[in-house]
Amino acid sequence: MKHFRITSHKSDYEVIVGRGAWRALRRFPLECYSSVFFFTEQRLWSRWGRAFLAESRLLRNLRELRGTEAGHRKHARHPQRLFIPPGEASKSLKMVERVVGELLKFGADRHSLLIALGGGVIGDLGGFVASTYMRGIDYVNVPTTALAQVDSALGGKTAVNVGAMKNLVGSFHPPRLVLADPGVLRSMSVRAFRSGLYEVVKHGILEGPGLFRRLERHLDTLSPANTAALEPMLARAVKVKVEVISRDEREAELRLVLNLGHTFGHAFEEATGYHRFTHGEAVGWGLLAVTRLAVRLGVLGSAEAARIDRLVRRVGPLPPVRDLDPARVLKLLSQDKKSIGGKIRWVLPERIGKVRIVTDVPRADVAAALRDLQGS
Amino acid sequence: MKHFRITSHKSDYEVIVGRGAWRALRRFPLECYSSVFFFTEQRLWSRWGRAFLAESRLLRNLRELRGTEAGHRKHARHPQRLFIPPGEASKSLKMVERVVGELLKFGADRHSLLIALGGGVIGDLGGFVASTYMRGIDYVNVPTTALAQVDSALGGKTAVNVGAMKNLVGSFHPPRLVLADPGVLRSMSVRAFRSGLYEVVKHGILEGPGLFRRLERHLDTLSPANTAALEPMLARAVKVKVEVISRDEREAELRLVLNLGHTFGHAFEEATGYHRFTHGEAVGWGLLAVTRLAVRLGVLGSAEAARIDRLVRRVGPLPPVRDLDPARVLKLLSQDKKSIGGKIRWVLPERIGKVRIVTDVPRADVAAALRDLQGS
Repeated sequence: MKHFRITSHKSDYEVIVGRGAWRALRRFPLECYSSVFFFTEQRLWSRWGRAFLAESRLLRNLRELRGTEAGHRKHARHPQRLFIPPGEASKSLKMVERVVGELLKFGADRHSLLIALGGGVIGDLGGFVASTYMRGIDYVNVPTTALAQVDSALGGKTAVNVGAMKNLVGSFHPPRLVLADPGVLRSMSVRAFRSGLYEVVKHGILEGPGLFRRLERHLDTLSPANTAALEPMLARAVKVKVEVISRDEREAELRLVLNLGHTFGHAFEEATGYHRFTHGEAVGWGLLAVTRLAVRLGVLGSAEAARIDRLVRRVGPLPPVRDLDPARVLKLLSQDKKSIGGKIRWVLPERIGKVRIVTDVPRADVAAALRDLQGS
Repeated sequence: MKHFRITSHKSDYEVIVGRGAWRALRRFPLECYSSVFFFTEQRLWSRWGRAFLAESRLLRNLRELRGTEAGHRKHARHPQRLFIPPGEASKSLKMVERVVGELLKFGADRHSLLIALGGGVIGDLGGFVASTYMRGIDYVNVPTTALAQVDSALGGKTAVNVGAMKNLVGSFHPPRLVLADPGVLRSMSVRAFRSGLYEVVKHGILEGPGLFRRLERHLDTLSPANTAALEPMLARAVKVKVEVISRDEREAELRLVLNLGHTFGHAFEEATGYHRFTHGEAVGWGLLAVTRLAVRLGVLGSAEAARIDRLVRRVGPLPPVRDLDPARVLKLLSQDKKSIGGKIRWVLPERIGKVRIVTDVPRADVAAALRDLQGS
């Protein structure tokens, strides 16, 4: 089990990665809260709810609390469960409206605690609800997908989509605690699991030879059920992100490195209406594209580029990008949310372990890299 | 002209109160932004837009900036104006969705600046949009009502309503600058203007004999057009709020004192579906009610209570509360958003210049104070 500490503008918090991570909730100060709410999906709760309650001893501790003076009148009610439908479509302002209405109905106040148990949608939406309900309540993030465990659950970024624009509305609202137990990945589909691995590879490129080489060596042993092999890999991937966001929570500059592969990736997702690729798969393609771009610009050597290319492709089969309209992709790239004053801020690999942020990349090079990728 | 400085968890900012306050925008660092957006109402812009642009020299400064290297490619476009319909109904998540969609369409990015020109709705909604658009952009608040100038524009509280629940969703997102020019109050209706005066009276009760006595002496000279009499009064009322929020931005405890009169006030507003009273009028009744409650509980002497009662009533005629169903008002009180664990946190005047926060007020006393008020 690995413990990390993230320093945030609002409060420090712990990230716990490993089998049995949920147990850390046993020493969480429940007495500080007036009530507890679960925010999750029906399917996930059916699969993991009982185990979560057993490991965390939440009901037992709440029951005990009710008997104390501090807990008197607090926690009078059994924790309420709020379910949302699975899928990206739930990350909407309409759903925010529904969820806050339910919180109000069940008596949530400013001292209530939200426990978000799920993948990226649950974490992003739950975090946004927590950050805005009565101007902000605390939440605990319990990520249940590989992608959420190594990426989206860390760093306090919350968001909902508006129209076709992903994460257009959101906030920085760090959770009080993040509990990432790799055992829960067992219930993931292989495709969804691999989707998370693309982010792990991205972290490998950022971290350097250590994690990257480890991935080259052990990638084939990683599977949803192989917790023993997964745990150290996830912990190292988490460490990469923790280190970046501890130094730059608000994405002033440094945090932007985490966007590696995402500029192309977002455009691929959007060009296909978010139907063809999982987010991770789009990032996989994005890593391949930006690697080509970096080579073309003379930023990255071809030997390292080949290693990146090989590792990304080993993760699994990717749905095609060959048929995407290049003009449309280029247009979408120019609308990237991380652009400033109309300029795309590219994160380019310089070598394994180092990236560079470049704003003046000629459109012709971007187009050529894309062409190259589509022909590959 | 008075300058105040508010210390916030995010950044310090200045509040400027007085004739010519808009001129302070001339020395605002526009070069730090990629584009500028106005967020206002059509009617307000027609009345004050030209004057605002002239006083702030905004267009001229943006034009100059376009010629410099720093401004190159930035501010290529004329500032866009985003209009919303007047009225509380605009403070919705639906409207947030519309406004962020427009911001995106007009190319707003993370370094865009929003200038919110209007009353409480514009400030609350504009602040919420600014706090969540791409996870937060900067905004300048230009309050155009008495209530917004002494109260809602200060302190960085942003909000929208959800269903019947006012301000259920929101954030703490301090503006970069607040410019309160009392000259703009000229275009207010007498009723809306008086509505703001109830908050000024509230601040008088909080501040102490100084402001309170000044109000007793000069209340009748205050009118939307009498800027000379207004300016010092507004500045003192602003000072009260600035001092409170500088010490407790997040309403841990101290900031709660600003809720004086609002517990009853919110219940009166809600009991009448927000149709009968302006917010200020409801607060006026709220002050009368809580004064009675404080006397009944032995917290406030009857002589001071009479002075508060007299001053509130001198502000203007109040729509009746006599016919409200007491049972419904009591029920709404118990749902107050500032309750913790189901307990109402009452802010009771102890004397002019001092309030006390009390959580264990017997329901019978609350009911009796309400009965007394309705019979008065």
